[in-house]
Amino acid sequence: MPAPHFPSEFGEETILFDSGFAAPQLLPSLTPFALAALTEHREEVLQYASGRGQPHLREWLAEWMNQDGCALTPDHILVTNGAKQGIDLVCRLLLDEGDAIVVSAPTYFTAIPIFRNFGVEFIEIGQDAHGFDVDALETALDARAADGRELPKLIYNVPEFHNPTGATMSAARREALIALADARGIAIVEDSPYRQVRFEGPDEPLLKALDRSGTVFHLGTFSKLVAPGLRIGWIAAEPAQVARMIQLKSEGGSSPLIQRIIYEFARSPDFSAHIDRVQAAYRERRDCIVAAVARELPEARIAVPEGGYYVWLTLPAHVDGDLLAAKAGEAGIHLIAGSRFFASVGAEVPRHHVRLAYSYTTPDQIENGVRRLGAVYRSIAGQ
Amino acid sequence: MPAPHFPSEFGEETILFDSGFAAPQLLPSLTPFALAALTEHREEVLQYASGRGQPHLREWLAEWMNQDGCALTPDHILVTNGAKQGIDLVCRLLLDEGDAIVVSAPTYFTAIPIFRNFGVEFIEIGQDAHGFDVDALETALDARAADGRELPKLIYNVPEFHNPTGATMSAARREALIALADARGIAIVEDSPYRQVRFEGPDEPLLKALDRSGTVFHLGTFSKLVAPGLRIGWIAAEPAQVARMIQLKSEGGSSPLIQRIIYEFARSPDFSAHIDRVQAAYRERRDCIVAAVARELPEARIAVPEGGYYVWLTLPAHVDGDLLAAKAGEAGIHLIAGSRFFASVGAEVPRHHVRLAYSYTTPDQIENGVRRLGAVYRSIAGQ
Repeated sequence: MPAPHFPSEFGEETILFDSGFAAPQLLPSLTPFALAALTEHREEVLQYASGRGQPHLREWLAEWMNQDGCALTPDHILVTNGAKQGIDLVCRLLLDEGDAIVVSAPTYFTAIPIFRNFGVEFIEIGQDAHGFDVDALETALDARAADGRELPKLIYNVPEFHNPTGATMSAARREALIALADARGIAIVEDSPYRQVRFEGPDEPLLKALDRSGTVFHLGTFSKLVAPGLRIGWIAAEPAQVARMIQLKSEGGSSPLIQRIIYEFARSPDFSAHIDRVQAAYRERRDCIVAAVARELPEARIAVPEGGYYVWLTLPAHVDGDLLAAKAGEAGIHLIAGSRFFASVGAEVPRHHVRLAYSYTTPDQIENGVRRLGAVYRSIAGQ
Repeated sequence: MPAPHFPSEFGEETILFDSGFAAPQLLPSLTPFALAALTEHREEVLQYASGRGQPHLREWLAEWMNQDGCALTPDHILVTNGAKQGIDLVCRLLLDEGDAIVVSAPTYFTAIPIFRNFGVEFIEIGQDAHGFDVDALETALDARAADGRELPKLIYNVPEFHNPTGATMSAARREALIALADARGIAIVEDSPYRQVRFEGPDEPLLKALDRSGTVFHLGTFSKLVAPGLRIGWIAAEPAQVARMIQLKSEGGSSPLIQRIIYEFARSPDFSAHIDRVQAAYRERRDCIVAAVARELPEARIAVPEGGYYVWLTLPAHVDGDLLAAKAGEAGIHLIAGSRFFASVGAEVPRHHVRLAYSYTTPDQIENGVRRLGAVYRSIAGQ
């Protein structure tokens, strides 16, 4: 894994297509909500709070997800320090050393070392334009069962605007995944940080909304919609599982100050205006990068995502994405080689992909960066 | 373990001697620092931050601990979500299922379930007026070695104003503990939340200040000195161990917003004035509870702590602390039975202690509460 990049370390001319940072222009003004928190709710926000999360925020989150098709109570919600802590807690709840888990190939690369901490065996399943390949998973599970090997304990996926591919699972695939997981007794971890960052097209149903037997652990976060620095996410799961995860979440809970700031923001009129602004700005950036790639790297295939932060480029088979990322980095264009997003390592990992994030860069930087990336591409593709 | 008590759940007449909450009157005004954070440092505090903690805060913490006798760089510091996450991370770093660890008897009861999550075997060592009994530990280690059993992996202790006993380890004991741990290759976890809440007497040296070989993991927190709701603590350890714990701290780091608020507060003139105010207020409450206990429960022995939040009462051997806590609770006086603070369970656990916290209650409430506690005591002690 590359070391994290912090934009402030770089000069103006460096283009950060590697960064999942929010657009600085979209960071909301939270000052009035912080003031309200520190004055009207002074004791609440400065004293110890429940490890489960503040009741007001859990209630709001349950209601918000219910508007999105779920049937949750506040007891289904556990507030976490971002979605990453959600992944960690679900692993602590479900996994023992040596257990197998299912991930997409490619998958969200920050999740890989979290899973590795638990000593897991990865089962990688491909995707297509309709998202995660449930038929391939069924075949893999059947083969495993035929070999007398234990089934995986969980299936991890980003169903919307997948990181890194941008693909969104169709409703039919979602139904099939739930049915398969239910039948085999395997938990699903639905990591959904980009749900509200949709530019067009109808929402597909949340896996959690389709869940009838408590199979799905839904992971949400305010990082991609509001601000990463808040470090507030949540898990929606069965109350009994929430209760067990509270015991494992031994850090005393998330800050009640931040939870109050988010709650005050979320129930203010600013919130929906903010969501509109986020969607509009990232749509513009997505349009810009898709057009620029088509123009400057016409050999690269690009699946246009309906939302999220990323585009995934499929290069001609002979072009090495690792080399492109390295050479582009030397030229001040930071991006991430596709090979980094596979849980497996070694010769079988596809090397003809790269991921470009368009969230942090302005349209001007996107134009400039993709033009320069095109020149690097031509220098290594032998054109 | 009792369910956590949140003061707001109770009426005026209920006396919360069970609560490690801060005195509401002592919660500092953080509004100007939050404003500065959200305006002058807007992008820093709302974007992703390093999992290690913000450089400004790590630098300040290293310097602060160096003024207290240490020799640290910012690379020795890992910012955590309170000291509890520090305990969890050190466990994740050092422990495997079935490992033995050393704790004092009694010990900080919130740490017990965190350790249990790792499947540890507890080795309990007693204390006296000079704190943790290092000679008894040496005897226990010798016996274990003679039996061919593996040595414990870590020694956990609260050296200052111990929770629950209030005892402070003498300098000689600290030197002896370091020498013993070094000689046997056992890590020391120094949990020091009350260091600045000292009412009188000279500071004893930090174990971390005596540490010459990287044996000591020091856990600090702003919870007891500033406000629990901030959820910011830190670990001071060897840089290589800090680097490994960052990998295990997979929740994306502590909020940069809260870290900036704390840093701005800590470097402001308000900070030392706040510490003075905290020390004076808790000293008054300690004096008040010590006098009230001597007057209302003259049979109880009480070791007067030089700082911290708690007094530990040793009752006559025939008086059951569990019963006293239960009956007092029915009378609206919440306190915690001493038996809760022992890692072991069953018949051998001493039952003639109770812990009273004086941090949350005002002097008037202390007078009122101890007077009513005296009546409950007499009703069960057969007087």
